[in-house]
Amino acid sequence: MPPASPDRSWPYTTSGIPDDWFAQLPGIPLTKREVRLLILAQLRLTATSCLWDVGAGTGTIPVEAGLLCPKGKVVAIERDEEVCALIQRNCQQFSVRNVDVVMGNAPDCLEAIAHSPDRAVIEGGRPIAAVISSVWQRLQPQGRLVVTTASLEGLYTISETLAQLPARNIEVVQAAMNRLERRGRSQVLAAVDPIFILSGEKLE
Amino acid sequence: MPPASPDRSWPYTTSGIPDDWFAQLPGIPLTKREVRLLILAQLRLTATSCLWDVGAGTGTIPVEAGLLCPKGKVVAIERDEEVCALIQRNCQQFSVRNVDVVMGNAPDCLEAIAHSPDRAVIEGGRPIAAVISSVWQRLQPQGRLVVTTASLEGLYTISETLAQLPARNIEVVQAAMNRLERRGRSQVLAAVDPIFILSGEKLE
Amino acid sequence: MPPASPDRSWPYTTSGIPDDWFAQLPGIPLTKREVRLLILAQLRLTATSCLWDVGAGTGTIPVEAGLLCPKGKVVAIERDEEVCALIQRNCQQFSVRNVDVVMGNAPDCLEAIAHSPDRAVIEGGRPIAAVISSVWQRLQPQGRLVVTTASLEGLYTISETLAQLPARNIEVVQAAMNRLERRGRSQVLAAVDPIFILSGEKLE
Amino acid sequence: MPPASPDRSWPYTTSGIPDDWFAQLPGIPLTKREVRLLILAQLRLTATSCLWDVGAGTGTIPVEAGLLCPKGKVVAIERDEEVCALIQRNCQQFSVRNVDVVMGNAPDCLEAIAHSPDRAVIEGGRPIAAVISSVWQRLQPQGRLVVTTASLEGLYTISETLAQLPARNIEVVQAAMNRLERRGRSQVLAAVDPIFILSGEKLE
Repeated sequence: MPPASPDRSWPYTTSGIPDDWFAQLPGIPLTKREVRLLILAQLRLTATSCLWDVGAGTGTIPVEAGLLCPKGKVVAIERDEEVCALIQRNCQQFSVRNVDVVMGNAPDCLEAIAHSPDRAVIEGGRPIAAVISSVWQRLQPQGRLVVTTASLEGLYTISETLAQLPARNIEVVQAAMNRLERRGRSQVLAAVDPIFILSGEKLE
Repeated sequence: MPPASPDRSWPYTTSGIPDDWFAQLPGIPLTKREVRLLILAQLRLTATSCLWDVGAGTGTIPVEAGLLCPKGKVVAIERDEEVCALIQRNCQQFSVRNVDVVMGNAPDCLEAIAHSPDRAVIEGGRPIAAVISSVWQRLQPQGRLVVTTASLEGLYTISETLAQLPARNIEVVQAAMNRLERRGRSQVLAAVDPIFILSGEKLE
Repeated sequence: MPPASPDRSWPYTTSGIPDDWFAQLPGIPLTKREVRLLILAQLRLTATSCLWDVGAGTGTIPVEAGLLCPKGKVVAIERDEEVCALIQRNCQQFSVRNVDVVMGNAPDCLEAIAHSPDRAVIEGGRPIAAVISSVWQRLQPQGRLVVTTASLEGLYTISETLAQLPARNIEVVQAAMNRLERRGRSQVLAAVDPIFILSGEKLE
Repeated sequence: MPPASPDRSWPYTTSGIPDDWFAQLPGIPLTKREVRLLILAQLRLTATSCLWDVGAGTGTIPVEAGLLCPKGKVVAIERDEEVCALIQRNCQQFSVRNVDVVMGNAPDCLEAIAHSPDRAVIEGGRPIAAVISSVWQRLQPQGRLVVTTASLEGLYTISETLAQLPARNIEVVQAAMNRLERRGRSQVLAAVDPIFILSGEKLE
């Protein structure tokens, strides 16, 4: 576990904390800043939102969403104990106190969560269609759901599942950003692996 | 001039207003949502920021920044009277009241602006190096500057100018997003033309 | 119909004729050079190949393939009489004489084509699954099939259809190129809309 | 050194050998297939071309160009002995016999090369401006030069150097492809890091 950096804070009203400001664990997915911005935008959070993040990984979305929803709540769901501790570490580091970390397997663990969300993001979980359906049932009317995937199977399944629910105002964006990064003596453009971000609304 | 849509509002703490929610004029640049998110993130706005937007175009950045800086101020600079009116129309539509629209040519018109910014974004103006230098002189210590360009000449000049100032913590991101859009009977992935977003900080 | 340019020739062993060297018609799709290169590479043409191009559009693939298969044959299939004439115009312009243009609707018109292909590219036709199946039945053993799409529905259907045939060694590439183009006084990076290129082999 | 695969052959008239068909060494750059196709297209090779490849790396361009120029010659230039052996290994594997491998530092080693090229690609060498100038002096009239870079400094320098020579018909393409790749249980779109490909012609 990397040491906490107690001096990190994010006093800005804009999102977009640099990736390397977060404590990280090898192999644990981190939602890259540019992708994170698109997810947060599609969530359309309010100050009082209750957000579920299924498959929260490093916890970058819970931290940023926690800051954006000061009177709301974020529920970060992860299977692994060590990853749950990582999310908590990152919340502490940025003094985010409105994030509940729930250790469990989606969709099974979702039923036990007390607060029904008005916003949800699904970054993982299997089978993905069952996770989406379970989250959708708990999603409040007028709620918004965002689902991300890097795979074509995922893209198919998510797109079909959203259409069947049916979600409204479905949007699909593929983020394919390049960042200038230092490699030895020179700075090269490095690609951020493309992620599909699907979003939709629940009408009633 | 498109009719104002008086019922538009953006009650969210996240940015990312859909492009077609803005009043638009043919030929006037509109900063696409995905690019806008990256610009706002690199600006790192605070609730009290004073932001200059040089070459504000349709006014999407002033609207979003106005919402993010409720106790701050945005100065939108544009040459053309009709475009200035468009920016005001868009501010009205989203009930944004902390945006001053300044009609004039950068860099000449900048001197007359009373408030020195702690944040600035340059989306246009010629010659770009002179615009950057003028804005930089007025930028407050610890201030942040973001400059966007779609051209390679622009990329060269901006990069060199930022290095000479010198700006600190220079970052370059190339936004290259694809959106699913309806084209006749099918939905195709359409590319948002890639934009380079350069940013840096003023230390003292 | 644009006038033929009788002085165009392509004496090179590499593909990649510039887009604006082709006669064009408004609204008729032109396979952009960068995408064309990927399609031709996935086809793995030989000097004696028989290639079918279903939905040949402007005829850029028939022209380039005609040059690459001097002892082979290209069958370009298009519905519209005017588009068929455009393909012939482009073949003449580049002195390509081994292209047969077949006017008809795929898949119905395919049965009447005498030569069975060892290579096929499908750039259009509806329903796409039926077109793929019809082409596949005629494809010679060890033959290669390439299918392109810009739509997600297309991507789903093509991917599933290829898997069911079953095609072997299926590959999917998403071409997302940017070109420096002159826009007024400056040169900007313009995105070529991303195309998915799916390919596979027939074993027996 | 990986073992040669004596059964590899490429009987096709199209380029685009899959990356993993080449013998490789850790840390030695391999020009990815999609980028290679764009380089070869911009070179506009003929059957009798003499091509110089400065900074040939794994030798993928020499192999493909050797196949495309059966009556011509390819000169592959590399500093390192082991890398030179790798290029030769790959030529043997694909039965390519018209490639000369020259071990040396560009631009110093270029003078000693007997054959002046009508085509040249520069994939490395420092300082890049000096390498370009040296190659340009040796380039035959009507010759074509292609230079690749992943860095912004490279992009600046190459672009300025080409303009000063002056090269004619300068083109800049940024290749930004995504490939479907297997990662564990799923297939995800992985980005090929974006490369800038600059090309120009020598008039006299």
